[in-house]
Amino acid sequence: RGKRVWTLAGKNVCFERISRLRELMASCGYDAYVVSDADPHSSEYPAGRWKARSWLSGFTGSNGLLAVTPGEAALWTDGRYYIQAEAQLAGAGVALMRMGEPDTPACPQWLAASVRRGGTVGLDGGAFSCAAHGELADALAPSAVGLAAGEDLVGRIWADGRPPMPGAEICLHPVRFAGTAAKDKIAAVRGEMAAIGATHAVIAGLEDVAWLFNIRGGDIPRLPVAYAYAMLSGGRAALYVDAAKVPGGVRAALEGEGVTVLGYGEIEGDLGRLGSGARLCYDPQKLNVSLLGKVGKGAALAPARELTMKLKAVKSAAEIANYRECQARDGAAMAKFLMWLEAAVAGGGRLRELDVCDRLRELRAAMPNNMGESFTTIAGYGPNGAMMHYSPDEGGGAEISDEGLMVVDSGGQYLDGTTDITRTVVFGSATDEQRRDFTMTLKAHIALASARFLYGAPGGHLDSIARKVMWDAAMDYKCGTGHGVGYYLSVHESPPSLSMRMSDKPSRLEENMIVSIEPGVYRAGKHGVRTENLARVAKDVANEFGQFMRFEIMSYCPISLRGIDEDMLDAKERAWLNGYHATVREKLSPLLDEGERAWLELNTRPI
Amino acid sequence: RGKRVWTLAGKNVCFERISRLRELMASCGYDAYVVSDADPHSSEYPAGRWKARSWLSGFTGSNGLLAVTPGEAALWTDGRYYIQAEAQLAGAGVALMRMGEPDTPACPQWLAASVRRGGTVGLDGGAFSCAAHGELADALAPSAVGLAAGEDLVGRIWADGRPPMPGAEICLHPVRFAGTAAKDKIAAVRGEMAAIGATHAVIAGLEDVAWLFNIRGGDIPRLPVAYAYAMLSGGRAALYVDAAKVPGGVRAALEGEGVTVLGYGEIEGDLGRLGSGARLCYDPQKLNVSLLGKVGKGAALAPARELTMKLKAVKSAAEIANYRECQARDGAAMAKFLMWLEAAVAGGGRLRELDVCDRLRELRAAMPNNMGESFTTIAGYGPNGAMMHYSPDEGGGAEISDEGLMVVDSGGQYLDGTTDITRTVVFGSATDEQRRDFTMTLKAHIALASARFLYGAPGGHLDSIARKVMWDAAMDYKCGTGHGVGYYLSVHESPPSLSMRMSDKPSRLEENMIVSIEPGVYRAGKHGVRTENLARVAKDVANEFGQFMRFEIMSYCPISLRGIDEDMLDAKERAWLNGYHATVREKLSPLLDEGERAWLELNTRPI
Repeated sequence: RGKRVWTLAGKNVCFERISRLRELMASCGYDAYVVSDADPHSSEYPAGRWKARSWLSGFTGSNGLLAVTPGEAALWTDGRYYIQAEAQLAGAGVALMRMGEPDTPACPQWLAASVRRGGTVGLDGGAFSCAAHGELADALAPSAVGLAAGEDLVGRIWADGRPPMPGAEICLHPVRFAGTAAKDKIAAVRGEMAAIGATHAVIAGLEDVAWLFNIRGGDIPRLPVAYAYAMLSGGRAALYVDAAKVPGGVRAALEGEGVTVLGYGEIEGDLGRLGSGARLCYDPQKLNVSLLGKVGKGAALAPARELTMKLKAVKSAAEIANYRECQARDGAAMAKFLMWLEAAVAGGGRLRELDVCDRLRELRAAMPNNMGESFTTIAGYGPNGAMMHYSPDEGGGAEISDEGLMVVDSGGQYLDGTTDITRTVVFGSATDEQRRDFTMTLKAHIALASARFLYGAPGGHLDSIARKVMWDAAMDYKCGTGHGVGYYLSVHESPPSLSMRMSDKPSRLEENMIVSIEPGVYRAGKHGVRTENLARVAKDVANEFGQFMRFEIMSYCPISLRGIDEDMLDAKERAWLNGYHATVREKLSPLLDEGERAWLELNTRPI
Repeated sequence: RGKRVWTLAGKNVCFERISRLRELMASCGYDAYVVSDADPHSSEYPAGRWKARSWLSGFTGSNGLLAVTPGEAALWTDGRYYIQAEAQLAGAGVALMRMGEPDTPACPQWLAASVRRGGTVGLDGGAFSCAAHGELADALAPSAVGLAAGEDLVGRIWADGRPPMPGAEICLHPVRFAGTAAKDKIAAVRGEMAAIGATHAVIAGLEDVAWLFNIRGGDIPRLPVAYAYAMLSGGRAALYVDAAKVPGGVRAALEGEGVTVLGYGEIEGDLGRLGSGARLCYDPQKLNVSLLGKVGKGAALAPARELTMKLKAVKSAAEIANYRECQARDGAAMAKFLMWLEAAVAGGGRLRELDVCDRLRELRAAMPNNMGESFTTIAGYGPNGAMMHYSPDEGGGAEISDEGLMVVDSGGQYLDGTTDITRTVVFGSATDEQRRDFTMTLKAHIALASARFLYGAPGGHLDSIARKVMWDAAMDYKCGTGHGVGYYLSVHESPPSLSMRMSDKPSRLEENMIVSIEPGVYRAGKHGVRTENLARVAKDVANEFGQFMRFEIMSYCPISLRGIDEDMLDAKERAWLNGYHATVREKLSPLLDEGERAWLELNTRPI
């Protein structure tokens, strides 16, 4: 069929691993096997233990699906990773499938064409959500190819060097920070269960379990969660987590909130004991298909998006109040950072990108309630700024000179919130193109930050309000405009999504959700610009046409006046910028010393 | 469960019909039965023969689903029809389910709660597409309720008075109008089949069959199609249509294009004869589930959106050239109409809304190539204009005085195109609110008509470019901004959709698709404003960010200058309007007499 045939010359350790997988496939009667990097909870950032696809193929990007047949192997990834994947797959005997290119077959199509009618594709049921498994099964069904949710064949090969289950202790998230007691959250979820007629709900999302019980863990870097499940019924609220992770005091406190603490593996037996009369709610996008298979046969199933998801995404009044404080502290750290950076570069210091990341981490760490970073800082100087997900490697990254642009996208975890902010630093005097790109980004940011929109507008439609500014100038950016943000949880939190990509269940923005607004311009080989603030969804006027909403910006940090071409801003845009900078001064001044305040005054002066 | 219980007092003929359905349900072993108004081709405008739900329940709105259990009956419809449905359902023993209200259960939820576990819901498999059937079956499965695609039980009751199968003769659509010969279209579809590995394709959409074979029919008012199927294989192109509809000359011409003409019912046997080796492509949203059940067991299935859909939606160069002529003729008819209306009302004529519709139809009919209207004219004067889908009834509708607004939304079928245009007529001097609403509508229209957008932008995102103008002013309209339009076919043609509602497969706008742009303002009890033009999707610049697209407006008719508050337009908007009116003058002047040209000059004067 014209596919690329790999020679055996130059084969590497991954080639050998895949060969051993093929032997196991044969013994199981599988005609193909599909491998992902997903953990049993469909987490965005799985711990290393579950990166089976990375280990097997050598390709370590965040998006990749590997399919293996007796004679071929192929890996699907997107445009961010083509170059990396080409390099990492060399010698593994794996063909690179470039997603998004017109001639690339989708994985199910490829499997349907590669497997005989009546054949079977296998996968590790623990590493595929019910939804992912169902979609693949549906796509294979017309070709009479079956899909088995089987055991973890890669795990049988990957004995040596496989990372263990992460074992960080959990701690309580005190109610003065969490805002709502666990027992009240449990009651709210039980209310949602009653509304859909569910007697039981299993919660697989790690952030959802942490939110529900007001606990935090350390199993995933920069994301304070523990590997755990929850199951609620009318009479019991169970937390399934390795006993070794639960200090006695935490256990006692949880029991005080009415929570039964059980072992991580006990979820299987409890699901199996559900019988007729039980109606189990689960999130098909979160629960893995192996666990679904453990549910007792008599029980009825009620698939629904995680009942906790919207409750968690809509922040309480207490959370919003804490958030404002947290954001001001984070903004103060950012202001100190920008002032330091300006002085260091002007003073001839030979900084590299990684020095910038380190200094910013230290300044955040000095702030009350800081618990580290919320993601790996992106500090992209010059052409590196054009790579949206660039981070300097351990070598230190590019050296920064006194001209050009640097995109700094960073965030902190705090006991009272999670932050995510991008500022583009302008060194020296910007070129005309740089100023134009900087100002276009600001205009797009302002368009959405100041927009009024009807309640119920899908987040995707808000994306185009910022993007239209770019389109008018025949420009674009190849990513979404914004995402939801957690509260001392994930910096990417569903359901909010301000993106051109439409999901099949577009989410509405509710009052007190927190989203990012982050348009940008990326010129490959030249520079990048991004200006990102977090915003609270707020109520605006209500009239005969409906309830209107608006955004309240909740990140406080100067936007470089050096980057702006003032002639490109109209009166409204100027007023927005001056108003924003006045708020920044008001919020940050109390947290800065005299020298810093002078810097702030200068850098937030009205234009 | 707290549902409304109907008393038997005041029961009507529909109550009796539903009782007889319940007897048949019992004899079939069904615990519930679902009834729609759909025809076997999932047509937007089914012929009367298939309006089973209307006949059974008495509710005749275009959107409605009826579910019947032994003890209850319920009908789901949307906000356009609440008042009508309340009135029409009285006495039928059917509860009205208001879709979109928070407490209304969806039909599948209601069925799941009403039917015992292990029970069966029945429906007429001819009146549900595979997709509609599959969605309902999936929604019922978790409650262990089965869904049978059975026979037409309503048909067994509805003997007397059921309209027969429509029997209008078909004619050829000459290639000088159609642009492409049937044999070339057949070859193009075969190319699409090869690309997805299909040996056979069944085409159920009536517009698609008409397009493919360059035939037109008269089975549905204002939509020139015939009830027919098509099936293509490598060796045969079959048209299934009642023989009586096919004049000898048409049959001979079709045979000359390589088309085999067979009886309408012969599709069943041909599908049944497909065996192993066959791979049948079908559109799950168009093919009815009964026909799918007839497919031979050995054949593989390849579900895909109708292969003809995108080929049909992307107009050829010949079609676009014809379209421009057709649109100018239609615009001339509109200009004559507006001039007549202005004079008639100023002259004290006592016009009613229906007189307006009649006159407009006559003016269109006088134009070369006109084949009637493309839909029932909406002529809504005063408060009637606030009802988006209002049409005057046979009584004649409201009388028009010399003040206020009237929305006139109309279109024509021509051998060389289909038109759809809305103008809001301003009588006397408009009030401030009317002028503001008129001007806001124009501003929203211009925003989209003059927008540049990236190739690949989902139509839904373009909706928000027009809508943002309204949102900025805390206004909105409760409908989409635009839809695709056919070529001497349906005035609503998929896939284009410029709508806030996201479908699960958002469609991209391709060059030479035709869409409507029709924002509006609707103030219940007061007035409506809508300004609608058709537009061609055209290429704009291409650069490092991608291929940009724009619209070319292809409706030519003055927009009332009386309705405009000039102070609300900025310089760009003024320039757009003056440029558009210059084009209108250029296109229409050759088609008008001297007096009409003077009127046109005045009404397209620069502002």
